[in-house]
Amino acid sequence: MTQVLPLPSAESAPEEALVIFTPSGKRGRFPVGTPVLTAARQLGVDLDSVCGGRGICSKCQVTPQFGEFPKHGVTVTEDALSGWNAVEQRYDRIRGLREGRRLGCQAKVEGDVVIDVPPESQVHRQVVRKAADDREIVMDPATHLHFVEVAEPDMHEPSGDFDRLVRALREQWEVEEATAPLSVLAKLQPALRKGNWQVTVALWRGTEGPARVLDVWPGFHEGRIYGLAIDVGSTTIAAHLTDLRNGTVKASAGVMNPQIRFGEDLMSRVSYAMMNPGGDREMTRAVRSAIDGLAKSLAEEAGIAARDIVEMVFVCNPVMHHLLLGIDPVELGQAPFALATGSSLDLEAKELGLTEVNEAARVYVLPLIAGHVGADAAAVALAERPDQSEDLSLVVDVGTNAEILLGNRTRVLACSSPTGPAFEGAQISSGQRAAPGAIERVQIDPNTKEPRFRVIGVSLWSDQPGFAEAVAGTGVTGICGSGIIEAVAEMRMAGLLDTGGLIGSAEQTGTARCEPTGRTHSYLLHDGTANDGPRISVTQGDIRAIQLAKSALYAGARLLMDEMGVDKVDRVTLAGAFGAHISPKHAMVLGMIPDVPLDHVRSAGNAAGTGARIALCSVAARREVEALVKHIHKVETAIEPRFQEHFVAANAIPHASDPFPNLREIATLPEVSFNANGGGGEGRRRRRG
Amino acid sequence: MTQVLPLPSAESAPEEALVIFTPSGKRGRFPVGTPVLTAARQLGVDLDSVCGGRGICSKCQVTPQFGEFPKHGVTVTEDALSGWNAVEQRYDRIRGLREGRRLGCQAKVEGDVVIDVPPESQVHRQVVRKAADDREIVMDPATHLHFVEVAEPDMHEPSGDFDRLVRALREQWEVEEATAPLSVLAKLQPALRKGNWQVTVALWRGTEGPARVLDVWPGFHEGRIYGLAIDVGSTTIAAHLTDLRNGTVKASAGVMNPQIRFGEDLMSRVSYAMMNPGGDREMTRAVRSAIDGLAKSLAEEAGIAARDIVEMVFVCNPVMHHLLLGIDPVELGQAPFALATGSSLDLEAKELGLTEVNEAARVYVLPLIAGHVGADAAAVALAERPDQSEDLSLVVDVGTNAEILLGNRTRVLACSSPTGPAFEGAQISSGQRAAPGAIERVQIDPNTKEPRFRVIGVSLWSDQPGFAEAVAGTGVTGICGSGIIEAVAEMRMAGLLDTGGLIGSAEQTGTARCEPTGRTHSYLLHDGTANDGPRISVTQGDIRAIQLAKSALYAGARLLMDEMGVDKVDRVTLAGAFGAHISPKHAMVLGMIPDVPLDHVRSAGNAAGTGARIALCSVAARREVEALVKHIHKVETAIEPRFQEHFVAANAIPHASDPFPNLREIATLPEVSFNANGGGGEGRRRRRG
Repeated sequence: MTQVLPLPSAESAPEEALVIFTPSGKRGRFPVGTPVLTAARQLGVDLDSVCGGRGICSKCQVTPQFGEFPKHGVTVTEDALSGWNAVEQRYDRIRGLREGRRLGCQAKVEGDVVIDVPPESQVHRQVVRKAADDREIVMDPATHLHFVEVAEPDMHEPSGDFDRLVRALREQWEVEEATAPLSVLAKLQPALRKGNWQVTVALWRGTEGPARVLDVWPGFHEGRIYGLAIDVGSTTIAAHLTDLRNGTVKASAGVMNPQIRFGEDLMSRVSYAMMNPGGDREMTRAVRSAIDGLAKSLAEEAGIAARDIVEMVFVCNPVMHHLLLGIDPVELGQAPFALATGSSLDLEAKELGLTEVNEAARVYVLPLIAGHVGADAAAVALAERPDQSEDLSLVVDVGTNAEILLGNRTRVLACSSPTGPAFEGAQISSGQRAAPGAIERVQIDPNTKEPRFRVIGVSLWSDQPGFAEAVAGTGVTGICGSGIIEAVAEMRMAGLLDTGGLIGSAEQTGTARCEPTGRTHSYLLHDGTANDGPRISVTQGDIRAIQLAKSALYAGARLLMDEMGVDKVDRVTLAGAFGAHISPKHAMVLGMIPDVPLDHVRSAGNAAGTGARIALCSVAARREVEALVKHIHKVETAIEPRFQEHFVAANAIPHASDPFPNLREIATLPEVSFNANGGGGEGRRRRRG
Repeated sequence: MTQVLPLPSAESAPEEALVIFTPSGKRGRFPVGTPVLTAARQLGVDLDSVCGGRGICSKCQVTPQFGEFPKHGVTVTEDALSGWNAVEQRYDRIRGLREGRRLGCQAKVEGDVVIDVPPESQVHRQVVRKAADDREIVMDPATHLHFVEVAEPDMHEPSGDFDRLVRALREQWEVEEATAPLSVLAKLQPALRKGNWQVTVALWRGTEGPARVLDVWPGFHEGRIYGLAIDVGSTTIAAHLTDLRNGTVKASAGVMNPQIRFGEDLMSRVSYAMMNPGGDREMTRAVRSAIDGLAKSLAEEAGIAARDIVEMVFVCNPVMHHLLLGIDPVELGQAPFALATGSSLDLEAKELGLTEVNEAARVYVLPLIAGHVGADAAAVALAERPDQSEDLSLVVDVGTNAEILLGNRTRVLACSSPTGPAFEGAQISSGQRAAPGAIERVQIDPNTKEPRFRVIGVSLWSDQPGFAEAVAGTGVTGICGSGIIEAVAEMRMAGLLDTGGLIGSAEQTGTARCEPTGRTHSYLLHDGTANDGPRISVTQGDIRAIQLAKSALYAGARLLMDEMGVDKVDRVTLAGAFGAHISPKHAMVLGMIPDVPLDHVRSAGNAAGTGARIALCSVAARREVEALVKHIHKVETAIEPRFQEHFVAANAIPHASDPFPNLREIATLPEVSFNANGGGGEGRRRRRG
């Protein structure tokens, strides 16, 4: 510890006092006059400091405890710490020091004392996520702000300003070695002089190799630094702007992936790259520009500068991953689905051509599991840690491509399944993104066959008084992913839809809402034409799209269960940007997921995004996920004949052969059949097979 | 050693033979059947191989020696090695194997044998430089070509192609860890498939940290890789395109530094940056674009692709260094002359915006010594190694800014001195760059006062028969740096110029060539007006410019001698692009350098450029120069009052007070004085002081 700190005065040096820190319980004896921060550091107590003990940053606040502490075997008198000094008085005058608080770098030990470190003064504190689940992130970000005092240049012992900064970081922050991009070298000299040889640096530290100075500000920088956790999905790009000090999400946003114009799903984008020379580069430019736009709008929303965004973490499926990095994804379109690289990557945002962040911003890309199972699945694994589960846990990340994990402490399997974009409202006649005005919940009365629904942005059901007024602002514009799942499941439970997926006619169902549409029927959910709104129906085509999607999902899960040698799982976790909004009961009626007791189905929210945030906030988590993906066994669905069999059997609603006993207990599924030929399932199976 | 190599057959395994390599003398016993290359590797013998022992590259050629070797205590029979196998027969048929040669990877040890490794099969062989001096470069480049066989992807054990390449490098080339830029990841998959899972990579290795794959070619790449050694001077940018396999310079070129339009010397460029917001960025763009142009024209001249240039090494003075890196040099214009950074830098060419080289090309920038003593001085130190000299050696790198080193095994001092551009022909009335048509040598008859001269591109003197015809192509266009030095020194020896630097009149000197020019005189060297050529004279202004330049140079050397506590040196080395062309005698008549015996003055050519080439060809040399600059003690001329004193005393030709005894023995310096006031030196001193 070569920290420049006030030393205990000479005469009191021999006298010592006991210092006990809570909540850690760490304790030690120190010479009277030792600053509390120094004692904390020597004991390895987690007490924050940006300014390195200079009384500038106020991050090292502590609460001394006075009185009898039988548990610790000490009595703390009122004079156990030195009185307020000028620095604390000034700080209190300007910013206010909370009752009972002291600055750890200023208060000196005078007698035995118990010192509590409040959560906000801990660097590695746990940050409870606001989402619906209970995982905690332990803050351990790669980039920290450090205040440093740099020696002035001496003409007779010439050395570079940066070289002296590195020396100061070594002496004041125990940073072994540091490098800097040219952008920082260009900014350093004016910053040092403006700050009177004191600067604040944003210092990035990997696990090995030299640290890297990402930015420099004159004097003590009051600002904060941020990171972006980004999930690049086939359909949506979602980003969370996160405070790197405490993990708080300052702003979140999602945009459509502009690559959609080149193809709706992954394979059509790979085809586009194969058929059009330079097509991969077009798609790379499109996604990078969308990410830049997202970064810009998030910074604007949060009122921060692009310069303050110093890190980005990406999770994406393999095709999105390759296109983001500028790698032609053609090999991912054909067996053996070889990735260019599956390892995690440490890059600069500049290498990706991203400009709406700090010019030296770092990028971390999570590792991929295989050619079909991407960094998004790795992120889900990091967020959900199936490898730490006692129960056999199935985690399904629902998206255009579903990522499926099955495992427990013993073994973890993974696969991906091409569900297509139906669950996200695409390829659905009245489908739309989950936005105000979209139908998200549906109920159909099994007797009257009349529907009621709720739309995003309105808390009333459509048959409740005041709904018309409440919805006037947005109108009822369409149906989103969770809405279509509920609608189809409710139609099945109301006897409007048979197990093969056929919609009955008005005559067969007894409701005029079942209208003929070409040679099939559709079910009218909402007629908004009186108010210039759309007519929203569930068509036979919509049912077919949902059947394809859910069959793929179920078949993937079953394939993993085969590999694991089980025919049931203990728990199901629904993840995905939209997974959080799926009703477990309706998902099970549809046969999207294996049959389990309903209370064993849980929504994990956007687990891939959560995994990205965890990796953004914790270097240790990056190393964890790198180790974890090596441990996960990959099952390739694309070439597995049993996948095809499972897929066909899963086409029925809920399933042609699997019994679903738990579901039968909580839902009635009328035995109806609307196919004139009887055995309609047969016919469909032939068409699909 | 996990090299995939043929194993000795099982039955012969127990039998061993003695293998002795020359010239190294390394020896060891190996099982019969061991390939010679394997034996060499196990003994650490320096035997090249690009293909890793696959019989493809033919770099491992050896010459077995047969007969009695009493010195080694062995007798080598004709059957000591296995006979030619199919690979050697095929190689000989297609490319021809030289008499007595074998491929080390194919020939197997059958009995005791002496194996000579010819120089071209040694990786770290010494390459004798073609220049006028005797230093040798031991090849140890950072970047090598390696041929690798990569495992094919396996869908059931998914891994990225790059991850398998890294594994192959580890197994076949003992490369611990490797990374790659995105450009290589984008090229890798097609290269692996085109090369049928064999590729050649250009692998860069620093001293620590992971290696980096800079490029990849399908199969065995027959081509070569190159580096550029670049000296960015204030006036000239010079570059050598160098083969990284053997250090051969394939092409060299120099261009004017386009920053000259912003200011002729360093301080005027610093001023430009201070006075014009964004001026530093203008100069950065200018120099980078000139370097790109130079790289392009060198590649064209050598008939190679930009892609083949994978490394660049830069030496430059501090102001050029900062402007090249995009750092405002303003701090270098004022005490304490603080560098932004003085350390060596490992960068990518891309970071400097350089595009006419491989897109992943690496850049190494030599360390600087101080705010006024740059990487060019470090490069001179690396080329000349004054720290290894027994004699006290003065090394003067003559340029717009002179870099001066003084030292021996005990101690090395350095300073720089602002000589200005006069020595490079600028600020001289008829001055020009050293190019065909420029006067480079001058003699003046001390009796007739008639001159004769030689111009660049013509080997005849101007008074020899045939000169007029020989020079007709270029004409006599001006006078270059070495020409003006000789002209002034010859004028002094012919009594046309007094010790104070005044040119005499026609009456005073007895020659009509001393013509009145304003209130002073000039000496007519050549009247080309009859052939539409210029009239070339040495004016009083030219003499003044040369006096200023040589005084600065001499004062710098004297300051170092003061610091060292000596009043004479043992040896003088003249370096610099133009230093090689300076006549030592004339330089001493002028008083540019301290008085030493004439045969102790030596030209080292462009030592900074040589230092750059050494660093380009050797990683060990980079570490050497980094250590060396830390050892060099810097003397700052700009603030040293004695520098001013030395400068004034050095104004006289050769010197006002230093005796120059060695010079007096070889040259007659007439005691003339052309100042009507007498004591002209006095008057000048007052004007200058």
